[in-house]
Amino acid sequence: MLITSVAFEQLPIRLKDEGTSLKEIEKILQSIVRYSVKTSSPHFHNQLYGAVDEYGIAGAWLTEALNTSQYTYEVAPVFTLLEREVIERSLELIGFPKVPEGDGIFCPGGSMSNMYGMVLARYAVKPDVKTKGLFGIQPLACFTSEAGHYSITKGAHWLGLGTESIYQVKTDEWGRMDPQELKKAIAKSRENGRLPFFVNATAGTTVLGSFDPLPEISAICKAEGLWLHVDMCLGGTLLLSRKYRTRLEGIALTNSVAWNPHKTLGAPFQCSLFLVKGKDILHKANSAGATYLFQQDKFYDVSWDTGDKSVQCGRKVDAAKFWLMWKARGSKGFESLINKAMETAEYFFNKIKNRKGFRLVLPKFEGNVVCFWYIPPSMRGLEETEEWKKKLHTIAPKIKEKMILDGSIMIGYTPLGFKSYGNFLRMVVTCQPPASHSAMNFAIEQIEKFGADL
Amino acid sequence: MLITSVAFEQLPIRLKDEGTSLKEIEKILQSIVRYSVKTSSPHFHNQLYGAVDEYGIAGAWLTEALNTSQYTYEVAPVFTLLEREVIERSLELIGFPKVPEGDGIFCPGGSMSNMYGMVLARYAVKPDVKTKGLFGIQPLACFTSEAGHYSITKGAHWLGLGTESIYQVKTDEWGRMDPQELKKAIAKSRENGRLPFFVNATAGTTVLGSFDPLPEISAICKAEGLWLHVDMCLGGTLLLSRKYRTRLEGIALTNSVAWNPHKTLGAPFQCSLFLVKGKDILHKANSAGATYLFQQDKFYDVSWDTGDKSVQCGRKVDAAKFWLMWKARGSKGFESLINKAMETAEYFFNKIKNRKGFRLVLPKFEGNVVCFWYIPPSMRGLEETEEWKKKLHTIAPKIKEKMILDGSIMIGYTPLGFKSYGNFLRMVVTCQPPASHSAMNFAIEQIEKFGADL
Repeated sequence: MLITSVAFEQLPIRLKDEGTSLKEIEKILQSIVRYSVKTSSPHFHNQLYGAVDEYGIAGAWLTEALNTSQYTYEVAPVFTLLEREVIERSLELIGFPKVPEGDGIFCPGGSMSNMYGMVLARYAVKPDVKTKGLFGIQPLACFTSEAGHYSITKGAHWLGLGTESIYQVKTDEWGRMDPQELKKAIAKSRENGRLPFFVNATAGTTVLGSFDPLPEISAICKAEGLWLHVDMCLGGTLLLSRKYRTRLEGIALTNSVAWNPHKTLGAPFQCSLFLVKGKDILHKANSAGATYLFQQDKFYDVSWDTGDKSVQCGRKVDAAKFWLMWKARGSKGFESLINKAMETAEYFFNKIKNRKGFRLVLPKFEGNVVCFWYIPPSMRGLEETEEWKKKLHTIAPKIKEKMILDGSIMIGYTPLGFKSYGNFLRMVVTCQPPASHSAMNFAIEQIEKFGADL
Repeated sequence: MLITSVAFEQLPIRLKDEGTSLKEIEKILQSIVRYSVKTSSPHFHNQLYGAVDEYGIAGAWLTEALNTSQYTYEVAPVFTLLEREVIERSLELIGFPKVPEGDGIFCPGGSMSNMYGMVLARYAVKPDVKTKGLFGIQPLACFTSEAGHYSITKGAHWLGLGTESIYQVKTDEWGRMDPQELKKAIAKSRENGRLPFFVNATAGTTVLGSFDPLPEISAICKAEGLWLHVDMCLGGTLLLSRKYRTRLEGIALTNSVAWNPHKTLGAPFQCSLFLVKGKDILHKANSAGATYLFQQDKFYDVSWDTGDKSVQCGRKVDAAKFWLMWKARGSKGFESLINKAMETAEYFFNKIKNRKGFRLVLPKFEGNVVCFWYIPPSMRGLEETEEWKKKLHTIAPKIKEKMILDGSIMIGYTPLGFKSYGNFLRMVVTCQPPASHSAMNFAIEQIEKFGADL
């Protein structure tokens, strides 16, 4: 059984005053495994992540055993060097300048990495906000596409900008930010008395996996004097492939990026990088100079202490596991896994393109996320009325329910505002376990099986 | 060798196009261990954390292997239940109401947990800030003691309040917030045209480990209508001990708390809880309702999906490791480890109290952090002039340097504004490995050895 709904009563969840015997603990561990979702299965396509890389987990386990915090060189000498190396190579990959002209930090997830982008953009335009706050200044405006991730919304709330400061830029038929619409939105924000300061472009949107046109967006940002951040949490991994990195053309022209190797690439959860162009800005924007931790009279070069660049204090070591994966596989090893995932996704795309009952959301292959409606036999060849569409909206959740109860496979579903048929299935292909045609064939079979009598 | 400075050239840090053989990887892993700081040593007293709990690491390794995100029940069914149980028991420990009248979430570290407190306090007083931002509203004011953690400062910056919105309340001679000074600071903020909204009290201050008087502070907050958050990242663990939980008297009277089981208790890094009183506020304040992830038409009870309470999207599973520790040891097992750590710290305190060359920063035993100056033989019995104090300020860093180069022990040092002798040593006693008198004796011997000829 791959996946099962948890039988609450079968797990002795309650914590008590008394402890538990080792024998009992062993049984509990087995139950946890039994009732947990097997993300390592070749048939887990439910999220943008999947199985964990085998070197990644070795690095993660070692990190856990060495239990320390990434804030000072003093307590994390090796991890500090490994983090620096990953940052250097990632800056190079993007085409950003090296440290200290470029910089970066590991963050607890992509939402936090995107928030770093917003905070640095705000610091660049209004450094006094750090001390004086947003009270009494001209309201600011941020821009992201309607397909952009909701972390920008959450960030706008937390950072005190308010969700109304976000202008959702319209996308084209491919789900990409429309540069002309961005221009219009910027003009509109000025009309509304706001000061535009931050544009979030997306390289690999969450639902469709689309890539915003960075050269055009960058030109607009330069002309308007805006900070351009790229949420490449999903798509950044393609930079490692010579064949697919053109999807991110123009990435070097931007100010900052967020990248999640814990998605497609299979780094163990959490593994997210924020990377930025500009000397010292990461430190200047975030530093508080805590004297108990970042003593300046230590006997070593304290510029190796990275903690004051962070909004966190204690910071989990997320660098070592990714470093180990990269070291073991080399950039070329990553490239071949990525190419395989992409080619497998394209195989799936081509296989369902003209297949009865399948209808693609985007008619062109874009990335490792393939979205499609499944139209069960009973609904085929009928006029596609509003009622028909309403029924189609319920099909994906029903197929999903059958998948989960059967325990054989998991594929996600979602609605999307700009396409009118409601809920569709979203197939995600990742690098781990290495993607295969047989897994794609199995997915199609299962969908047809579960959808047959709907 | 316990600790060594890393020889950069001895580690093949550089990442390349080509991969690395398994044999080479094995050597690298050994080097990482060799050159890393051994936080699991009984002689690591350098931070507020130490060795990792053995059940904790089992839980951490299992979590890594099952590689998933805590955002939905769908992909983390067991982990969702374990997180809920830890939250329920933690609410009970504090004396907060149960779910749904109380709530909580695991966060990536105490700074983030404290920021949750600030965000919820802001939402409670000015819910419109979520949509409209801080522009044009009356400037807000936060309060924390001068011994409070710097995360409040970083939070004020990120959240758009500005660091000037923080009123640092004076402490008494024990490093505890002075309630009369809090009253004065609140009045002053009003005079300055600010709206007070948030008080951060500390249960276990970062440097001295002092406990703010919660009943008095709570009474002031109630009278003034302010949100009272308690940074009990360090001290919250004492709630598990019947003997020491009185240190946190009044904790149930507060609105929210941050607690880090990854400190004294030995949960693997990162393990931090934010807990709050009040139905739905955690969800209401943070929700963005992303339709692609938190579908409301799933076939199970979607109130189990916790992700929309979070500012993060993907969220590392931090609950399972702590749940397993608690399950295996029971609350009583924790209690005896905590009592042992506290009694050992008191043994250390008593041992150096009247010992030649040692001078305590606080003359009364408070918690598992004991701060003291070491006066080397050459400086004893002299008039304590400004020059003498200036020299004493350099002693702790020199002893620390010797410790690190020797590799036998690590104890931190820090200056503190309100005591005039500058840098002192800060001994931290944690639960893992279980605290022992012999480790304390060893620490005293080493300090005397390294300080002998200074």
